[in-house]
Amino acid sequence: MPEATVERLAVYLRVLTDMLAEGVPTVSSDVLAAAAGVNAAKLRKDLSHIGSSGVRGVGYDVSRLTAQVETVLGLTRSNAVALVGVGNLGHALAGYGGFAARGFGVTALFDVDPTLVGTTIAGVEVLDVAEIPRICAERGVTIGVVATPAAAAQQVCDALVGAGVQSILNFAPAVLSVPGGVEVRKVDLAVEMQILAFHVSRRHDRVASDATGKVYG
Amino acid sequence: MPEATVERLAVYLRVLTDMLAEGVPTVSSDVLAAAAGVNAAKLRKDLSHIGSSGVRGVGYDVSRLTAQVETVLGLTRSNAVALVGVGNLGHALAGYGGFAARGFGVTALFDVDPTLVGTTIAGVEVLDVAEIPRICAERGVTIGVVATPAAAAQQVCDALVGAGVQSILNFAPAVLSVPGGVEVRKVDLAVEMQILAFHVSRRHDRVASDATGKVYG
Repeated sequence: MPEATVERLAVYLRVLTDMLAEGVPTVSSDVLAAAAGVNAAKLRKDLSHIGSSGVRGVGYDVSRLTAQVETVLGLTRSNAVALVGVGNLGHALAGYGGFAARGFGVTALFDVDPTLVGTTIAGVEVLDVAEIPRICAERGVTIGVVATPAAAAQQVCDALVGAGVQSILNFAPAVLSVPGGVEVRKVDLAVEMQILAFHVSRRHDRVASDATGKVYG
Repeated sequence: MPEATVERLAVYLRVLTDMLAEGVPTVSSDVLAAAAGVNAAKLRKDLSHIGSSGVRGVGYDVSRLTAQVETVLGLTRSNAVALVGVGNLGHALAGYGGFAARGFGVTALFDVDPTLVGTTIAGVEVLDVAEIPRICAERGVTIGVVATPAAAAQQVCDALVGAGVQSILNFAPAVLSVPGGVEVRKVDLAVEMQILAFHVSRRHDRVASDATGKVYG
């Protein structure tokens, strides 16, 4: 299945979960596509990928489609998450309700800072990073979240991979090297800001250019 | 300039800034490409886009290239950031050192919760969302960060756009509708987790299939 389809399935699931909570029984591909921000033809193709087709004039059964998408995404299997680095951002992520609500319980927290080790965040005790191998094995951790400073990220990633964790979500502003078969997803908040800044800047230039009647470029 | 080039320029800048801080005078395209996690041919093409070419056998001048990328990304112009929703995640983002360090000062904070309005996070007072139009105009806000629950996100986005903010970073699990010319970037942490879960699940199926000698598909 193409990676882009997987990403869109996750977005459909978010919309479907909301509809389910609101008691919506069926949904047309047009409505579901609009709510997910994709075009309807692409959505129908994605859903045919997972063997789901709507009923003409009725649409998709929300409850059934939700269950199908969850199965395909592997969400019927529980995922245990370990988070490393409970500084500013990591601390917030550890307590972020959005993870637990979608079935991703943070079951282990690690840090190097002795003033943080032993403290408890959202009911989970922060342990020393030296404990990564033992704890990840004991708690069956499947997903590791790296929220350390850039300089520590590779070493932490290596420890997680060494402990058998094969899916990493990386918030550190660093490129991680991993063996084949390990999946890394990256969230770089400053890069997102810089991309937005580029658009701000381009608009200013356009306005300036319109105002003077000159064309730059 | 293609959006993908803009994204890579932001990544090159992160690497260049680190090199500059470490006093590295010049860098080859191979080394810079490896540190940024792209191939060297693509990097050379990206940099030629912005009119920068290395010197054969010497590479790129780190300080000069950093300044060029910053100029292209519009980072020489200051960006004022307004953040709406200072709950769990928003509170962390408001204090996230990574934004300020890259020149994105959070200059305004908003929430609807009367118990949060009037409090101060990282030196910035939380104001009522009703103040968005006045404050964004006064403080010259160019980038808005939406960190509200999904149900409130569109209304907050409309208020920001109405106040002249044309670049939005959306952390809420909702698709935002915006007028043409407004740029929205989206960070959905639960979606990232679900994509990783899919890979975890696929690996389990593969292992199970190997063990039984059956091929599913």
